Amino acid sequence: MLHQMMRVRWAAWKALPQEDQKEMVEQAAALLEPMERNREAPSALFAMLGHKGDLLFLHLRPSFDELSQTELCLARLKLWDYLEPATSYLSVVELGLYESSVKVFGALLEKGLEPHSPEWQAAVEEQLAGQRKAMAPRLRPEIPGSRFLCFYPMDRRRGETRNWYDLPMTERQRMMRDHGQIGRRYAGEVTQIISGSIGFDDWEWGVDLFADDPLVFKRLVYEMRFDEASALYAAFGPFYVGRRFPAAALGDYLGGHLPPAA
Amino acid sequence: MLHQMMRVRWAAWKALPQEDQKEMVEQAAALLEPMERNREAPSALFAMLGHKGDLLFLHLRPSFDELSQTELCLARLKLWDYLEPATSYLSVVELGLYESSVKVFGALLEKGLEPHSPEWQAAVEEQLAGQRKAMAPRLRPEIPGSRFLCFYPMDRRRGETRNWYDLPMTERQRMMRDHGQIGRRYAGEVTQIISGSIGFDDWEWGVDLFADDPLVFKRLVYEMRFDEASALYAAFGPFYVGRRFPAAALGDYLGGHLPPAA
Amino acid sequence: MLHQMMRVRWAAWKALPQEDQKEMVEQAAALLEPMERNREAPSALFAMLGHKGDLLFLHLRPSFDELSQTELCLARLKLWDYLEPATSYLSVVELGLYESSVKVFGALLEKGLEPHSPEWQAAVEEQLAGQRKAMAPRLRPEIPGSRFLCFYPMDRRRGETRNWYDLPMTERQRMMRDHGQIGRRYAGEVTQIISGSIGFDDWEWGVDLFADDPLVFKRLVYEMRFDEASALYAAFGPFYVGRRFPAAALGDYLGGHLPPAA
Amino acid sequence: MLHQMMRVRWAAWKALPQEDQKEMVEQAAALLEPMERNREAPSALFAMLGHKGDLLFLHLRPSFDELSQTELCLARLKLWDYLEPATSYLSVVELGLYESSVKVFGALLEKGLEPHSPEWQAAVEEQLAGQRKAMAPRLRPEIPGSRFLCFYPMDRRRGETRNWYDLPMTERQRMMRDHGQIGRRYAGEVTQIISGSIGFDDWEWGVDLFADDPLVFKRLVYEMRFDEASALYAAFGPFYVGRRFPAAALGDYLGGHLPPAA
Amino acid sequence: MLHQMMRVRWAAWKALPQEDQKEMVEQAAALLEPMERNREAPSALFAMLGHKGDLLFLHLRPSFDELSQTELCLARLKLWDYLEPATSYLSVVELGLYESSVKVFGALLEKGLEPHSPEWQAAVEEQLAGQRKAMAPRLRPEIPGSRFLCFYPMDRRRGETRNWYDLPMTERQRMMRDHGQIGRRYAGEVTQIISGSIGFDDWEWGVDLFADDPLVFKRLVYEMRFDEASALYAAFGPFYVGRRFPAAALGDYLGGHLPPAA
Repeated sequence: MLHQMMRVRWAAWKALPQEDQKEMVEQAAALLEPMERNREAPSALFAMLGHKGDLLFLHLRPSFDELSQTELCLARLKLWDYLEPATSYLSVVELGLYESSVKVFGALLEKGLEPHSPEWQAAVEEQLAGQRKAMAPRLRPEIPGSRFLCFYPMDRRRGETRNWYDLPMTERQRMMRDHGQIGRRYAGEVTQIISGSIGFDDWEWGVDLFADDPLVFKRLVYEMRFDEASALYAAFGPFYVGRRFPAAALGDYLGGHLPPAA
Repeated sequence: MLHQMMRVRWAAWKALPQEDQKEMVEQAAALLEPMERNREAPSALFAMLGHKGDLLFLHLRPSFDELSQTELCLARLKLWDYLEPATSYLSVVELGLYESSVKVFGALLEKGLEPHSPEWQAAVEEQLAGQRKAMAPRLRPEIPGSRFLCFYPMDRRRGETRNWYDLPMTERQRMMRDHGQIGRRYAGEVTQIISGSIGFDDWEWGVDLFADDPLVFKRLVYEMRFDEASALYAAFGPFYVGRRFPAAALGDYLGGHLPPAA
Repeated sequence: MLHQMMRVRWAAWKALPQEDQKEMVEQAAALLEPMERNREAPSALFAMLGHKGDLLFLHLRPSFDELSQTELCLARLKLWDYLEPATSYLSVVELGLYESSVKVFGALLEKGLEPHSPEWQAAVEEQLAGQRKAMAPRLRPEIPGSRFLCFYPMDRRRGETRNWYDLPMTERQRMMRDHGQIGRRYAGEVTQIISGSIGFDDWEWGVDLFADDPLVFKRLVYEMRFDEASALYAAFGPFYVGRRFPAAALGDYLGGHLPPAA
Repeated sequence: MLHQMMRVRWAAWKALPQEDQKEMVEQAAALLEPMERNREAPSALFAMLGHKGDLLFLHLRPSFDELSQTELCLARLKLWDYLEPATSYLSVVELGLYESSVKVFGALLEKGLEPHSPEWQAAVEEQLAGQRKAMAPRLRPEIPGSRFLCFYPMDRRRGETRNWYDLPMTERQRMMRDHGQIGRRYAGEVTQIISGSIGFDDWEWGVDLFADDPLVFKRLVYEMRFDEASALYAAFGPFYVGRRFPAAALGDYLGGHLPPAA
Repeated sequence: MLHQMMRVRWAAWKALPQEDQKEMVEQAAALLEPMERNREAPSALFAMLGHKGDLLFLHLRPSFDELSQTELCLARLKLWDYLEPATSYLSVVELGLYESSVKVFGALLEKGLEPHSPEWQAAVEEQLAGQRKAMAPRLRPEIPGSRFLCFYPMDRRRGETRNWYDLPMTERQRMMRDHGQIGRRYAGEVTQIISGSIGFDDWEWGVDLFADDPLVFKRLVYEMRFDEASALYAAFGPFYVGRRFPAAALGDYLGGHLPPAA
């Protein structure tokens, strides 16, 4: 999963002859529209608010090689000369397997297996593989069709007295369960994709929220700020807000007209 | 609500022929003057002090779509090629409903409703909807006509020992009541607009203070720094100060003459 | 009070024909020299050391409007196209009224006035107005003629266990008195101007030290670092050092010769 | 050991005539291919993901002089005009000698030698020299042929209550032993090179992980985050991910096609 | 003492005709070579490793005026148009007078002098003046001829529980004595210059280490990290490493060949 936040070099873009603009927009749309329709490897386009960027490209791909190739294809676009990278985020969609992991580990301990022994590892892998298979659709999510996106990266805190990674797993599991309940109350209004970026980017997780009404982002994130896992153990990175529009309407956007969302 | 802090590219601007400057200023004023007069969706223009920027544009709009469209309209101006974004801030005007929320929650608990149950949610929504309606004028504020603006974003702290989000609601309510009393003592001198940016931008709130005498900003913010909510639990972002002037006088400003405030 | 730290774009400047350089220097000197001589609204010019900037402009003005107009006049100079802003600082000269405030508050409490009641406010305002009048010359300071300037912004700390704003006023008063005694020991060697920037810029105070021997800055700041108010409660921003020279010698500086200080 | 993270100036690169591109790619490949094959002083090339850079060059050399000369040779390439440095990291490959140092020190103390006396220093040097010789191949590692690289710098924390450098050596040794066991469980999947940068760059260590499946980076770093040495005492810098490709395929990459990994 | 870290604008430099390059190198060498030979006011030149810069200029001068004039002379060089400032550091060479100060203060207290009284100040000044004179050669150090330089700025910590400036002087003196002993063990391998920057730059001290073998920097700084003064009370800034070469060989460096060190 790659988020690319780009700024439009408006002065240079506006100075181009209209036929050049048209050609560049058509070349870009010809690349992006099939990506939008591709259910196995979808991309989506958003108009960002504020100075953090103008266009946000969201790409989901089955592998890092395909992400890298997508980056190169975009960099080859003539339009790309009129964009500049503001920031980006690299992560991998993941499942929250807190509850099931605890159950699996507990069961194996009862059976008398020694943690990290070859038998233990094989048993864990077998159990989790089954769960991963069952949850595969959640690992290859589609990009929801909602009008607005809110993206932010976050960490679990490792403070001197409040350290998530120093807590017993059952404690963390309990807090994650409470945390998840808030999310579930917003189920009809917000779709979320959680991705992991430990080892890939500068925060531990990325959170993508999708909703038709952007005020819901504020209510959800505010309410979560009071649950124990967030209040005591979450560190939040920068927030990015985008308004979706189809690649077919890129010309409207670059011509100064916010396109309809769909 | 969007704050746009922009730098003037003075060297490039001054190198333009006067007729080009005139044309660009007229095009910009033609866009900005109706925005200034629009009571439903007002904008205002300020001359900033110091290197953080030269011009601050403040936009209030009923929706993110309209904010985004405003950004695009400005980006299309010829004048925009002679400005560059320094920073921005995205937020939503909100009401401090601390006291009324506590009352509503207390009443519902007395009735025996279970928090977050469907009945509870419906009752809360009904109560707050009534209050929101009554306070709608405060949710769609006009931009005060004062000469000076002070804007800063802020957070409530989540320190290891001082954590706002770990306090009981009655504690927070008590501190916010004390905090509000200071603000009320400045009622005749300062108008404030509080906006929320959780989920939208990198701090939790934005504070806009409007006054004719800028020294009042210092007295107010200094006095507040000693109240418990601020002394122990506030984290302050950068401060921006602007001196208002009408869009009709943009040419004076860009010609090197600070225009009268109104 | 506005500090402007500027970098010289040396390559572009040196590429100019000498007559253009001469004309630009004369235009700049014609603007700056009267500012240097203006006792009501003085400016001064310094050569900075290191990469933080080349030229530091210090402006004292009776109002923000006049500061803003000064900024615009400088931005209109042809020379300004060969400078670029590195940073700046906006603040207001203030008096340390710790001791007198405590006396005033104590006296009013003895009289039985309730803090923040209308009678209390009126009495405080009456007392402080008298003091402000008596100290007016210190509120409109001249810029000392010393060879060197040391400027830095600072905060009082609001740590989780060491929080200046959570201390009783008498404690703060005691520490400020001790702190002031160090300053007084340097009275013959250093002149200082303290300005407040709460509500105006990103730190709470600005400190300007003026001395003929720059080593005194190090001794003074080092000694102060051990007094209680600084050791426990001060947070220091970046430090800037400048060597004064008269605007009439700007051409020497830009020609590569450090001018005499006066 | 030097990591160079570079951005491609795509717009300028794409504007070049194809024959110029071809010539520059050939000149670069002629320099880089022998470096790739040099077992004593190897270099490798990676395609980076996200905005942190496009190309990562990894150089291992026997001396700083040779690293410096490598930098100069690259800077002389015509291709280099179309790259710009994003960041870099300078470090020296080192061995974890925690366990053996403790044994050596313990033995010498038993013999009654006084720490840091000339006899002690000579005995330590003799012992460690023997070990260094035995482990010399690990000090001159080859660059593994794996498809993916994960690089990040890190520190041991020196917090006010959790301070690695304030712990007894036996404590640190115990934690490092546990920490090492996690790494060993990934032995078949991940190769790591640990380098020290105390005195050379802004973090204390650099960690290079090499694997064919990049998801292993996430599992390994996540699992390690819970061991005591990391949970309580590690501070992590930015993370960089690259996908290896041979210098011979540089033209493909710059032409928009991600080359095969080998 | 001024460190100037500069980046070479390689693309622009390489695009110059060879005769222009030659002329610029000769002009620069003509300025720098006498500075290298000047024992009263020496300068030295280093090739930096990594992206933090390409060339490091180190200047020692008897006064800030002379440092400022050196900066201006360099800025006037034609070569300077092909360099850009990365960072810099301004400081003053100083003596560690911890032990002698404590002795002096103790003796005066025994004599019954009141601290900071005029008699006390006079006595202190007399004692320290004598010591300064005796140690004058250390205050005007030469730049050692070693092959490598390691420079870093540092602070003494003022944490909420670990605050150097809140410790009794005897405690600080004891820790500095232990700290100094480590340095002395490296006497044959490393030469160090300690400079103070309180009041001048953003950290409190600058440390310059000079050695022929750069690995010694790592051993020394690592060993020091465990002494009490560093482990508990030191905060370290960025590290810079340079390889010395003579100004006469600047043309070789800019032509892509690392010159011999002497």
